[in-house]
Amino acid sequence: MPKLLKQYLPIFDWAGDYSRDSLIADIIAALIVTIMLIPQSLAYALLAGLPAEVGLYASIAPLVLYAIFGTSRTLAVGPVAVVSLMTATATSMIAEPGTIGYIETAIALAMLSGVFLAIMGLFRLGFIANFLSHPVMTGFITASGILIAISQLKHIFGVQMSGHNLMEQVNSLISKLSEINSTTLLIGLGCLLFLSYVRSGLMGLLLKVGIGEKMANILVKAGPVFAVIVTIILTSGLSLDQRGVDIVGLVPQGLPTLHIPELSLELIEKLGSAAILISLVGFVESISVAQTLAAKRRQQIDPNQELIALGMSNIGSAVSGGYPVTGGFARSVVNFDAGAMTPAAGGFTAIGIALATVFLTPLLYFLPKATLAATIIIAVLSLVKIKPIMETWRYSKGDFFAMFLTIVLTLMVSVEVGITAGVVSSFVLFMYRTTVPHYAVVGQVAGTEHFRNVKRHKVITDPRIISVRVDESLYFSNIRYFENAINELVASNPQCKHVILMCSAVNSIDTSALESLESINSRLKAVNIKLHLSEVKGPVTDRLAHSHFLRNLTGNIYLSQYEAFKSLTAEQ
Amino acid sequence: MPKLLKQYLPIFDWAGDYSRDSLIADIIAALIVTIMLIPQSLAYALLAGLPAEVGLYASIAPLVLYAIFGTSRTLAVGPVAVVSLMTATATSMIAEPGTIGYIETAIALAMLSGVFLAIMGLFRLGFIANFLSHPVMTGFITASGILIAISQLKHIFGVQMSGHNLMEQVNSLISKLSEINSTTLLIGLGCLLFLSYVRSGLMGLLLKVGIGEKMANILVKAGPVFAVIVTIILTSGLSLDQRGVDIVGLVPQGLPTLHIPELSLELIEKLGSAAILISLVGFVESISVAQTLAAKRRQQIDPNQELIALGMSNIGSAVSGGYPVTGGFARSVVNFDAGAMTPAAGGFTAIGIALATVFLTPLLYFLPKATLAATIIIAVLSLVKIKPIMETWRYSKGDFFAMFLTIVLTLMVSVEVGITAGVVSSFVLFMYRTTVPHYAVVGQVAGTEHFRNVKRHKVITDPRIISVRVDESLYFSNIRYFENAINELVASNPQCKHVILMCSAVNSIDTSALESLESINSRLKAVNIKLHLSEVKGPVTDRLAHSHFLRNLTGNIYLSQYEAFKSLTAEQ
Repeated sequence: MPKLLKQYLPIFDWAGDYSRDSLIADIIAALIVTIMLIPQSLAYALLAGLPAEVGLYASIAPLVLYAIFGTSRTLAVGPVAVVSLMTATATSMIAEPGTIGYIETAIALAMLSGVFLAIMGLFRLGFIANFLSHPVMTGFITASGILIAISQLKHIFGVQMSGHNLMEQVNSLISKLSEINSTTLLIGLGCLLFLSYVRSGLMGLLLKVGIGEKMANILVKAGPVFAVIVTIILTSGLSLDQRGVDIVGLVPQGLPTLHIPELSLELIEKLGSAAILISLVGFVESISVAQTLAAKRRQQIDPNQELIALGMSNIGSAVSGGYPVTGGFARSVVNFDAGAMTPAAGGFTAIGIALATVFLTPLLYFLPKATLAATIIIAVLSLVKIKPIMETWRYSKGDFFAMFLTIVLTLMVSVEVGITAGVVSSFVLFMYRTTVPHYAVVGQVAGTEHFRNVKRHKVITDPRIISVRVDESLYFSNIRYFENAINELVASNPQCKHVILMCSAVNSIDTSALESLESINSRLKAVNIKLHLSEVKGPVTDRLAHSHFLRNLTGNIYLSQYEAFKSLTAEQ
Repeated sequence: MPKLLKQYLPIFDWAGDYSRDSLIADIIAALIVTIMLIPQSLAYALLAGLPAEVGLYASIAPLVLYAIFGTSRTLAVGPVAVVSLMTATATSMIAEPGTIGYIETAIALAMLSGVFLAIMGLFRLGFIANFLSHPVMTGFITASGILIAISQLKHIFGVQMSGHNLMEQVNSLISKLSEINSTTLLIGLGCLLFLSYVRSGLMGLLLKVGIGEKMANILVKAGPVFAVIVTIILTSGLSLDQRGVDIVGLVPQGLPTLHIPELSLELIEKLGSAAILISLVGFVESISVAQTLAAKRRQQIDPNQELIALGMSNIGSAVSGGYPVTGGFARSVVNFDAGAMTPAAGGFTAIGIALATVFLTPLLYFLPKATLAATIIIAVLSLVKIKPIMETWRYSKGDFFAMFLTIVLTLMVSVEVGITAGVVSSFVLFMYRTTVPHYAVVGQVAGTEHFRNVKRHKVITDPRIISVRVDESLYFSNIRYFENAINELVASNPQCKHVILMCSAVNSIDTSALESLESINSRLKAVNIKLHLSEVKGPVTDRLAHSHFLRNLTGNIYLSQYEAFKSLTAEQ
């Protein structure tokens, strides 16, 4: 029982010997993350088409729940860019942005996604996430980054913009160019310039003037908060809202009320596929961050428990009026670098955000949306990576194709179509590849016991013997190709009397492959050729013992290929 | 050009040096197959819910076209049991049996299936058929055999029966038990007893009385023809049709008129999935027969050209008023055993059936349907195989599950649902298996250069070195599991300074796996562990050279694991 408890509630793993040192480290890290998370929460809520406070709500309960259920010591969960974009896309299919229905739908999406993640975790289905291959994820995140940046231009220009895919948004933006609000544009461009300087040049400057690296790092991360404070003061002092600058406005003060969202069957049908995609994308992003950070301190991540933790975080988000969350890259790195020792840091961050929600929200009234848009744009541009795309092109044309399809369809049609097409295409490619198994006809390297490919090496062969090295496990998807290959080899070697399958790389043989081996055996028997096996692995032999194949096998099983070849060449 | 011609028209491969001996052999084989095929064609048409002549039409043009396009020298195409059942299921969803619309739908199905097969062949998509695994096919054919046998009981009992799945048919049969026609039952049971005796006991008797094995074999195959002739004479002589015995009735005399069936988009939508399933099942059955026979004479089969040949056969069948066809097991074996040398035997068989269509059809008027039903039941009971099911259970529980699901759903719901569920379940099983790659931590076998699993052998290891033998190609579906395994190994071996990946079984590394290897490398670097590779295959090294991975690799690439281990243990 205590073991099971520790498995499902990893908090018991560390809470027992929580030290004073850890407490101090965690509180400091929490402070820094809180400062970073406040503008991010507001900005990503804006990106998702939701009121600012929903972003704050999504940064309280999920952090506490992750601290209880999560296996990463330093992962920081909350609203992130790509998931916010996916939420916006899915939600606006069902409800009109700006309505209560829209907020309720986003909350229901978090609930659904949470339930889905938790179920995947309980049934240990984490492997499903494997089917989001790296190239597809890279392509998807890059395309999402571009879409997000474009979508925020409306706030920078101070115009209305519509459409979900690239063309619609760009067209809408162009048609509105005459309506640009120059004050808004000034704030937006100012923030963009300031934030990109903070990212690129500030660090060097701070180090030069003698500020320590750790402190400098914190100051850099506080850049967005600084932009928020300055633009609030400017807007309120100069009454810029009366000059048409769009502001955040009234943000309800106080903690969210708890409420379990109702999931009607109709809603599940409408949101189900979006919830699944959001869950998978969120999980894949989160787990890779968690693993990277854990490895740095030789800690461990349990992927299935991570699913449960993210599931609980999303359910918690939904119950407390938030929207879908996941582990974020930037904030986790900050948390880690700031010295967070345990998930308690996440709990303290939650307290920080909760305090902000109670006390600071009135101050956000004059915050220009352009400021938030600028922080989003600067953040997501780091997601757009051209180099990995070029590298994939050089490394594998097939993988590049899946990536390219994902990018184009995400930009031109929608995020959901893009990611789905990516998964399907990498799947088809994979299945096609598995149908063509690797094998080689081998011969003996003179003077050794080694056998090598006859096409690549000068080796000794015997016209009566065909030695085939099977380089893969034999499965229904590749066995027919292999069966065909054996037929061809035998048909083109009329002197052949023995076929030896060298099974050193065969980890398993499924039922289809077993039956194919049986028919290969009986076909060869019909033309007086014996079938032999060599170097069969232990577990494979064990399972073959349960079959008729060994009993009917015309030839022998040899421990080594050398032994097989030696004994058969000696025959007259 | 001649090479391309030979590839797509294999007839040029053998027609050039067609000898007098081959001619005689082919004609004799054709005669025997014709005698066997006439009752089969009629019976399977009945099974498909079609008029008897449709079965004959499906046994003329397809044979000629297969002779031109096929790569098997001895495969005999035509109507077969399982495809007839699938045709009945698909067609009766759209049209009422007994109507013109029903016949037209079956013809359209042949057309669609032919076009689909030909396209698959032209685009060399034969590998798709791999996804019908052996256990699923075995389960499906067994369940179909049971369904077919049950469906024919109505003709034996002389009652009407409805329903497609097992329960519906059995219920319908039970409710009609009071309406049994005893004369029909007598004919039906008589035929069943006679035909099962012919199958089991006649051969021995004939051999005993001194008839040669070849002749005895032919006489056994002529059993159904004999039953047909006797019951026609009985029925016509005693006017049994007036006692309620259901007869074949008027069969139109003469060859079919040629007519290209129209395929409306609506029809394609309705029949598309059925046509795909029929094509795949037919292809898988046909290719395995063709390969078995070809191997006996060391001949070769080209799967993609077989697709084209079956496609042309089905298009030919549709154009000449027939229904879906494929290569049949029993008739191909008879053709082979009777000494057929070339596909010309198929052409001669077509002439035989055409002559029968022109001259013999009036004689079929009094043929009782019970006789045909009995030939079907006897034929399909050989499809029902319990032993392979038991063997699959013993060999692999997962494969058994896919098989069991196929059987149950085919019997209880429908053939289409059954086969689809089988394919999907073996697919999911396969994908799940691929997510768990085989690997082993290895150590040196004392006094040798071999490295073996530390769990199974007494081997030499070094606490500073973790040697991992990777037993599979690295792909997006299994790399995350592997990444996790490395993390765990490193976390649980605090003294570790080197990780060596022994890549002797790695045939390829896709982009996802490459990126994971890069992150493994950089994570290990962060904790001062070097990553090395050993025994990397040539093609893999070639592709890695196009990547950044090798440049950033903290360790070395060693030709052999022994060399790697030796050089790293020597370090201080």
